[in-house]
Amino acid sequence: MSYVIGQTGICVRSIQRANPDVIDELARYGVATVHESQGRKGLLGPDLRPIQQDHGISGSAVTVLVSPGDNWMFHVAVEQCQPGDILVVTPSSPCIDGYFGDLLATSLQSRGVRGLIIDAGVRDTRTLREMGFSVWSRAVYAQGTVKETLGSVNVPIICGGQLINPGDVVVADDDGVVIVRRNDAQQVVEASRKRAALEEEKRLRMANGELGLDIYKMRERLAEKGLRYVDTLESLED
Amino acid sequence: MSYVIGQTGICVRSIQRANPDVIDELARYGVATVHESQGRKGLLGPDLRPIQQDHGISGSAVTVLVSPGDNWMFHVAVEQCQPGDILVVTPSSPCIDGYFGDLLATSLQSRGVRGLIIDAGVRDTRTLREMGFSVWSRAVYAQGTVKETLGSVNVPIICGGQLINPGDVVVADDDGVVIVRRNDAQQVVEASRKRAALEEEKRLRMANGELGLDIYKMRERLAEKGLRYVDTLESLED
Amino acid sequence: MSYVIGQTGICVRSIQRANPDVIDELARYGVATVHESQGRKGLLGPDLRPIQQDHGISGSAVTVLVSPGDNWMFHVAVEQCQPGDILVVTPSSPCIDGYFGDLLATSLQSRGVRGLIIDAGVRDTRTLREMGFSVWSRAVYAQGTVKETLGSVNVPIICGGQLINPGDVVVADDDGVVIVRRNDAQQVVEASRKRAALEEEKRLRMANGELGLDIYKMRERLAEKGLRYVDTLESLED
Amino acid sequence: MSYVIGQTGICVRSIQRANPDVIDELARYGVATVHESQGRKGLLGPDLRPIQQDHGISGSAVTVLVSPGDNWMFHVAVEQCQPGDILVVTPSSPCIDGYFGDLLATSLQSRGVRGLIIDAGVRDTRTLREMGFSVWSRAVYAQGTVKETLGSVNVPIICGGQLINPGDVVVADDDGVVIVRRNDAQQVVEASRKRAALEEEKRLRMANGELGLDIYKMRERLAEKGLRYVDTLESLED
Amino acid sequence: MSYVIGQTGICVRSIQRANPDVIDELARYGVATVHESQGRKGLLGPDLRPIQQDHGISGSAVTVLVSPGDNWMFHVAVEQCQPGDILVVTPSSPCIDGYFGDLLATSLQSRGVRGLIIDAGVRDTRTLREMGFSVWSRAVYAQGTVKETLGSVNVPIICGGQLINPGDVVVADDDGVVIVRRNDAQQVVEASRKRAALEEEKRLRMANGELGLDIYKMRERLAEKGLRYVDTLESLED
Amino acid sequence: MSYVIGQTGICVRSIQRANPDVIDELARYGVATVHESQGRKGLLGPDLRPIQQDHGISGSAVTVLVSPGDNWMFHVAVEQCQPGDILVVTPSSPCIDGYFGDLLATSLQSRGVRGLIIDAGVRDTRTLREMGFSVWSRAVYAQGTVKETLGSVNVPIICGGQLINPGDVVVADDDGVVIVRRNDAQQVVEASRKRAALEEEKRLRMANGELGLDIYKMRERLAEKGLRYVDTLESLED
Repeated sequence: MSYVIGQTGICVRSIQRANPDVIDELARYGVATVHESQGRKGLLGPDLRPIQQDHGISGSAVTVLVSPGDNWMFHVAVEQCQPGDILVVTPSSPCIDGYFGDLLATSLQSRGVRGLIIDAGVRDTRTLREMGFSVWSRAVYAQGTVKETLGSVNVPIICGGQLINPGDVVVADDDGVVIVRRNDAQQVVEASRKRAALEEEKRLRMANGELGLDIYKMRERLAEKGLRYVDTLESLED
Repeated sequence: MSYVIGQTGICVRSIQRANPDVIDELARYGVATVHESQGRKGLLGPDLRPIQQDHGISGSAVTVLVSPGDNWMFHVAVEQCQPGDILVVTPSSPCIDGYFGDLLATSLQSRGVRGLIIDAGVRDTRTLREMGFSVWSRAVYAQGTVKETLGSVNVPIICGGQLINPGDVVVADDDGVVIVRRNDAQQVVEASRKRAALEEEKRLRMANGELGLDIYKMRERLAEKGLRYVDTLESLED
Repeated sequence: MSYVIGQTGICVRSIQRANPDVIDELARYGVATVHESQGRKGLLGPDLRPIQQDHGISGSAVTVLVSPGDNWMFHVAVEQCQPGDILVVTPSSPCIDGYFGDLLATSLQSRGVRGLIIDAGVRDTRTLREMGFSVWSRAVYAQGTVKETLGSVNVPIICGGQLINPGDVVVADDDGVVIVRRNDAQQVVEASRKRAALEEEKRLRMANGELGLDIYKMRERLAEKGLRYVDTLESLED
Repeated sequence: MSYVIGQTGICVRSIQRANPDVIDELARYGVATVHESQGRKGLLGPDLRPIQQDHGISGSAVTVLVSPGDNWMFHVAVEQCQPGDILVVTPSSPCIDGYFGDLLATSLQSRGVRGLIIDAGVRDTRTLREMGFSVWSRAVYAQGTVKETLGSVNVPIICGGQLINPGDVVVADDDGVVIVRRNDAQQVVEASRKRAALEEEKRLRMANGELGLDIYKMRERLAEKGLRYVDTLESLED
Repeated sequence: MSYVIGQTGICVRSIQRANPDVIDELARYGVATVHESQGRKGLLGPDLRPIQQDHGISGSAVTVLVSPGDNWMFHVAVEQCQPGDILVVTPSSPCIDGYFGDLLATSLQSRGVRGLIIDAGVRDTRTLREMGFSVWSRAVYAQGTVKETLGSVNVPIICGGQLINPGDVVVADDDGVVIVRRNDAQQVVEASRKRAALEEEKRLRMANGELGLDIYKMRERLAEKGLRYVDTLESLED
Repeated sequence: MSYVIGQTGICVRSIQRANPDVIDELARYGVATVHESQGRKGLLGPDLRPIQQDHGISGSAVTVLVSPGDNWMFHVAVEQCQPGDILVVTPSSPCIDGYFGDLLATSLQSRGVRGLIIDAGVRDTRTLREMGFSVWSRAVYAQGTVKETLGSVNVPIICGGQLINPGDVVVADDDGVVIVRRNDAQQVVEASRKRAALEEEKRLRMANGELGLDIYKMRERLAEKGLRYVDTLESLED
């Protein structure tokens, strides 16, 4: 399906979504755990940052390809959204204009959309925080956009350096954004559950003062690789 | 007047300011609305970010041109400030040193100055937030500066990629900073008032679930441009 | 001792630390004052930013050199930490992977470590804030790391563009991070105390409306350098 | 097939390549023309720059996913290369280490490989130019890499912000790098041929002084959009 | 006149240019000397780099304001150009798309235009070098642009962080780009001539081994500022 | 000796240099080989780039600490230079002004200095290339500097993220810059000689088509780590 990446002028009406319970549970584990649990794949680049703090969401991706400085396709996309969705937007070439503000957020919120991931800029950030509409963006910039050139809705896009298909599961929190393929969601939620439990167990041991060196039995392998303990830096020089 | 841009060694004592009521009202509409209402002009670049959150101000620009790593002219500028002013500072070549901290802020605050816009660095940011002195800057950096080389006060400068004249109206909030020419302020406040009212009306319709596609009557023009709705991505490939 | 910079495979067990009272007092003056009081030296670059707001710490540096994308040496370092220490970490080449999260923070916190300075990325930032574990980092990024390649612990490193020796005093707050050589700590704390007192005095005078121009007696030297006061910009052009 | 993006530990031995004549002809039209001819898709980001000047190539992508600071998989990849191939390499997280130098280039050149596209760093650049081995990279950096962690060869990767499948056609010149899907190559070469002919025709007319305004019949549409010709800027202000 | 900065939909037909002999002579002195000779003003930011090496030009600015990703106004601008002009282009918000290639260069060259300064991207760079058409740009990027939205021609613009009026003199070489106000050109050429002669004299003395310390009589002032000569670093520590 | 890092107002007259034959031989091996031969230490960051192509030098570091926007100390440094030296310059806080041009180069060249490494900007680059004076810098920028504030000469500095002592050996070519401690130079030149010979041997084998997989006997370890060869990507999915 990858050959349509970058193709404009299309709006796909029907997309498949993952199981809502699975989607919701993924938010509980957060970006770092989900990323690890699916084999360190699907992480968007570090330049997409949240405009709010200490908050995490998950949802189904409705994807939008836009032209630089042109937010027309947002309006086409709103109509395709359902409760539980997250809008994922990428420009066809690098652009940090303020594509999105409180009006579009109101429209999305009225349809139950949970947030926006955008590889570009947004504005009205104070109002967005007051509304409780979550956003991860490359920039905050008030620069307005036009409505002249078509993009596409619900086609595969590359956003934050990752391929995202419509209907993929998006998990986003203070650490960034990670994508889980729709068909992998069930398996990833199970792996995340296990990992979270294991981590909780290690956290307790570490909180009690046990060392990772011992918990993970690292001492022997460190020695094999040649790690050398010395008393002082000076002793090394002798 | 543009030929004096970059000229050092001058302090202009008398500048004209806009109507205080107009200035204050502009803060209410915020950067995005003011930027749109004056035809998308005057927006400073996205690299000038606030050190505080969820706060907006407006005021009259007292402009300062400084040398790299030299904050001497701040002291010359303080004397020229009046209640309701905002200091707007730019270095003559790129520099992110910490030109400004809590002492200068105390001095400015005692004269009724409302904030600082600086295309360089600041320090003492925690104290500045505690004092309630608002700052938009390119960097937070403790690096100290010297007092050796003259700049100018109240001459036209370029800050954040925009030409700013002394006495221009500065509006700044979480979205960034926008400049309104002193003579345009009355006209821009009226346009902003109208725009804010129109947006409020649209917000209500959108909150009720009406689509931008219908409110702005976009469907026909989208079709003319060739937007193609398909049921599924697969159907496209047939 | 500088020749060991970059040498891997070493863990130094015994390092000397400064007087704990001196270390604690330095935190009270903060980064900008300490940086000034020791002659504007030791300031780390502006790209190392805190993940929390309005918080400052000080402590003794336990230094860690890591390979790109490899956090193995953190576990070696934990064992070398004492209450009051701060971990200072640098990769051997630029890397923003998420080397550090809540598990390692739990382990460090159980040993009384006060925080982390890292010229790379961290993750689990929301949990770190909830735990009250302070971090200054180049990036927030969930990307996981491996445990394959040795680095070193408690050797001199370059972090944020500054040379840091194990046992040096680290002071970090919202303005960034500054390093004080262990042997200079006593002298710097005294200079900081004096500077803070002097600044307090000036703050009061400025709060009362006195000008820096007069407090610092700048008017004569400005005139010597050729500063020219004019009434209006227009008058200059005549 | 996109779900394997980011999966490590795989080397795919057999990939399909496009028609060699088609591949070679694409190089003749260059990146800008090919990018336009396939509907402005497939262009890698502007940060991948050539280390040589005034030179263009095309070939079949052999893809390589590497770990940060680890170039082990290059050796696995060399064995999979055929004459006419181009190695396309991406790290699993951002890294600019010098993964590639003259030894690996010698090995690839002996197998008839035409060049390297890498979203990371290279070294020995002077020797690479002398050898006539073409490289497009994100950085020039001598930092060495290790051989500890597996990646993959000939799986789909994201490089320069584009999805690249093994066997896709790579076209690279001074303007950057563009990817053509293997199945689209025939169609794109025909479109490029036509576009190049049309451009040649326009070039002749423009060289003779004809204006784009007339050649493209833009005057009417500019007027419709409201373009206003004035004699002088001053006349506008009246 | 500054109030029209950012205003779209205007093409000014008649601009005044400086004396052609003066313009041509300025190219001989180059960017660094001209920048110094007019009091260190008018230098564009360091991100605008030449696509060719060891080449310098000067000419009269024909200014163009464009929308992000939209190069329509280039065609409007071509018609306004005369022999000896240089096109100076800026987008209304940051954009690095490839606005300009060999076709537009052919058109400009046929009218005697000497080069392009653009705060955005260009493409066809190899052909541009072969044609001998000089370009300074923020990026090289093949990304195509549309023709949908009006900008303006021959209005004041901000490009590379400097205010540029139509008819200002542009001087560009390997060091970057500097702007001389049309009315200052005569005075700046004279100052440049003098400075170049003085520098030549100093160059001869320095080539003969005389020190700047003596030529500029710096020793006394260095001593006054407290410069301390020591035999060895160790002696300093005693 | 590290405690003087950042100290201003000092000029050290007498520094020790390495054996001239050793220094000269290091240039022959180049940056990548020298960096590897001393255990991957001492490499300056990738942002210091040469202004000339296909050229390498080596020499003894004469170090200079300068203030932002102030090149006064260059003149103090010139007097301390001997034939075979390389000037290594760093500003006390980030600055890209054009500290250095053809006049200072003339002065240095008349004393036999081989080049300049500067973590800031330079100008007159075309003339510098014509003179054959080699430069590695962070930026090319014509912005002029003042002569008001002291720095230091021949004290340890941090440049390009590395600690550099006066008298250290600098090796610079198209790949960047690497530093060899004066006392390590003899040992590093021997290691480089051996490495160069070994690489030449491998180059011949690779040029003859032997694979790195076999030369370095990697196949077994790759299998142990779990590398899986598959015929096609599709077969993987079964």
